Amino acid sequence: MSRLPAPDLVRVADDLETLASYRDPQAPGWTRRVFSDFDRAGREWVAGRMEDAGLAVETDAAANLIGRLPGSGRRPGVVATGSHTDTVRGGGRYDGIVGVLGAIEAVRCLRQAGAELAHDLVVVDFLGEEPNDFGLSCVGSRAISGSLDEGHLALSGPDGRSLAEAIAASGGRPAALAGARWPDGLHCYIELHVEQGPVLEQALVPIGVVTGIVGIHRLLASIEGQSDHAGTTPMSLRRDALAGAAEAILAVERFAGGGVATVGRIEIRPGAHNVVPAEADLWAEARSPDAGWLDNFGRNLAEELDAIGTRRHLGTKLSWISREHPVTATDWVADAIGEAARSRGVEPMSIPSGAGHDASHMARLGPMGMVFVPSRAGRSHCPEEWTDLEDIGLGIAVLAEAIVLCDQREEERPGAAAHLAR
Amino acid sequence: MSRLPAPDLVRVADDLETLASYRDPQAPGWTRRVFSDFDRAGREWVAGRMEDAGLAVETDAAANLIGRLPGSGRRPGVVATGSHTDTVRGGGRYDGIVGVLGAIEAVRCLRQAGAELAHDLVVVDFLGEEPNDFGLSCVGSRAISGSLDEGHLALSGPDGRSLAEAIAASGGRPAALAGARWPDGLHCYIELHVEQGPVLEQALVPIGVVTGIVGIHRLLASIEGQSDHAGTTPMSLRRDALAGAAEAILAVERFAGGGVATVGRIEIRPGAHNVVPAEADLWAEARSPDAGWLDNFGRNLAEELDAIGTRRHLGTKLSWISREHPVTATDWVADAIGEAARSRGVEPMSIPSGAGHDASHMARLGPMGMVFVPSRAGRSHCPEEWTDLEDIGLGIAVLAEAIVLCDQREEERPGAAAHLAR
Repeated sequence: MSRLPAPDLVRVADDLETLASYRDPQAPGWTRRVFSDFDRAGREWVAGRMEDAGLAVETDAAANLIGRLPGSGRRPGVVATGSHTDTVRGGGRYDGIVGVLGAIEAVRCLRQAGAELAHDLVVVDFLGEEPNDFGLSCVGSRAISGSLDEGHLALSGPDGRSLAEAIAASGGRPAALAGARWPDGLHCYIELHVEQGPVLEQALVPIGVVTGIVGIHRLLASIEGQSDHAGTTPMSLRRDALAGAAEAILAVERFAGGGVATVGRIEIRPGAHNVVPAEADLWAEARSPDAGWLDNFGRNLAEELDAIGTRRHLGTKLSWISREHPVTATDWVADAIGEAARSRGVEPMSIPSGAGHDASHMARLGPMGMVFVPSRAGRSHCPEEWTDLEDIGLGIAVLAEAIVLCDQREEERPGAAAHLAR
Repeated sequence: MSRLPAPDLVRVADDLETLASYRDPQAPGWTRRVFSDFDRAGREWVAGRMEDAGLAVETDAAANLIGRLPGSGRRPGVVATGSHTDTVRGGGRYDGIVGVLGAIEAVRCLRQAGAELAHDLVVVDFLGEEPNDFGLSCVGSRAISGSLDEGHLALSGPDGRSLAEAIAASGGRPAALAGARWPDGLHCYIELHVEQGPVLEQALVPIGVVTGIVGIHRLLASIEGQSDHAGTTPMSLRRDALAGAAEAILAVERFAGGGVATVGRIEIRPGAHNVVPAEADLWAEARSPDAGWLDNFGRNLAEELDAIGTRRHLGTKLSWISREHPVTATDWVADAIGEAARSRGVEPMSIPSGAGHDASHMARLGPMGMVFVPSRAGRSHCPEEWTDLEDIGLGIAVLAEAIVLCDQREEERPGAAAHLAR
């Protein structure tokens, strides 16, 4: 049994409610998009909560909000946790937020128990995890893991401002960005997050141990036919780009077995009621924890598009917009999370994450694991997003316990000896 | 053999080229949209060509341009011909135009031959046949046939102006609209037009005798599912409106056999790359000369949408935006056109019109027929629209000859005796 006290649910509920009040009143749901005044104000409040919890707070060059609880110094490197507090437009009150406020509550529990960690514990409210106007997600965790580059900083948004300028306006120092990258020595990273899917709820299991984070391949299928008069052109002589696109949409669905795949957007031209569509663009994405599956998906779709083009006398082109590779959780971190759950009397469920997370990027720096709590009806990125307070409390308890268990684990990574010798 | 002289191809080519010069230089192709300055200027020039050809010209209350060649007065009522000179945005140089300039050339041929008709011959440049910013086509022929009503006149365009105001700005007197309706006594209406489809060209036949004008049913299929996270929602739990729409698009194509059917426009919401589409709207249209076929098409599509909805747990709704009924050409007018073609040494082809025309509306007033000339590659409503000058000349000769043949035909319609007694 754990020697840590249970999280204070009244305090957690109050924190969740207060942060939810930092929202754009002009937008639906709980909207607090990165780089908005609402996000800046919300994170200022989060910084205050970190300080109240006993963390030493700083904002790094990438405008990540970082709170540190010094350890005994017996071990080099840090144990890190956190998530994000920005939302999508029309988003909810839990995605990301639970991982940041939960980490702060975990710190309170640790301090209340008088537990001293061997490593420093670092709580991060990562900048801008959600997709933003610059077309980039996970801005802060990319910076910390060293994969935010000059090209990213030069991206410009709809108001003409560059990403660098937006980061500066949120308190970062983009000119010193290289300094945001963490040095070697991440002992492990553990993130608490809502599942954003229906699996835990349907299985009636309140804790998920994430096995890995899916890779995401985003593709653009462009189909070119010919615009013709919809009244005078016999069916047999048409080169209808939309009819070809319809076959491609159904192919994406057919090839999704074993993973998930979606066509979320379509544009056609000319788009007139009485004109045979000449061009169609489809934005598709496929997700799987299996890199081989993702490659197969793309191959299958490319072959099918070719076949559609041949059969319908259409030009077709498939291009990859982005390929994010799957990330696997580190066994010993996942094992510690499972042990933490069992110490709270819960047999957890192993589950892959279908959504991307800051943890995907943190995994570049060292061992990574994630704790999931259920999402009602699997809804997320919408005002209906909901997780029961009891489940959040349990997730926080598991996070705190896993932090203690992982802290005690001897380093095993290559180079660990060097760290110990420092 | 005809006693009429052949059309003067140099004169016809010059007229076509001059009218094509009245175009919006800011828009692609040959753009002369109704209610534009370019359309007004072009029709002013057309009025001058009518006068030069010996026609007495007036503009009616609906801003139709009407040229009259008095007949001997032996027969009451009129023989009418004409078409339109407005274009779609990015249109060509032949659609409609050939029927107006061809009618003027036919008048020249008739006068040159010293032919005197028993009926007055009326040449009409109908106002606004093409779809316009008010969402209405065939404005002028609707007015002449008595089906342009107060509701139409109150339609407002993107600049806030009403259709009535637009008609007034083009020289009409909308307050006196009832006066634009022709009285009983249309002996027949014959329209020369480019096919706008590939059938005549592929059959190597230069003259088509139109058997009828298709009916057009326009439908809106609305599909409602649920927006879900594209990464965390298993395929089996999705209610993907776009996947359902894809099946509906292919069903429209499948049900098109025996007619034509098209989905020309699609809109989905939310339309984000990483969100399962919640809603899809499809604008479909079906065309056939067979009213029963059109009804069947709608029934089949409604049943299929129901089935898609049941299978995919989607809400579906099919509504009719408009139903234009098919119009049949009058046998004796079509026979006269066929005889006229044979008098020029051409065995014509019987062909339905897949496009709507002013002739559809004129058919409410009396016997109707149309002469088609080939369109290269079937292209229309685009800058590539093309008909060979020789084919246009032949079409004009057939029109002129058919006018003479029809003029000599005794009235057979109910009420004809009353006209004769006047």
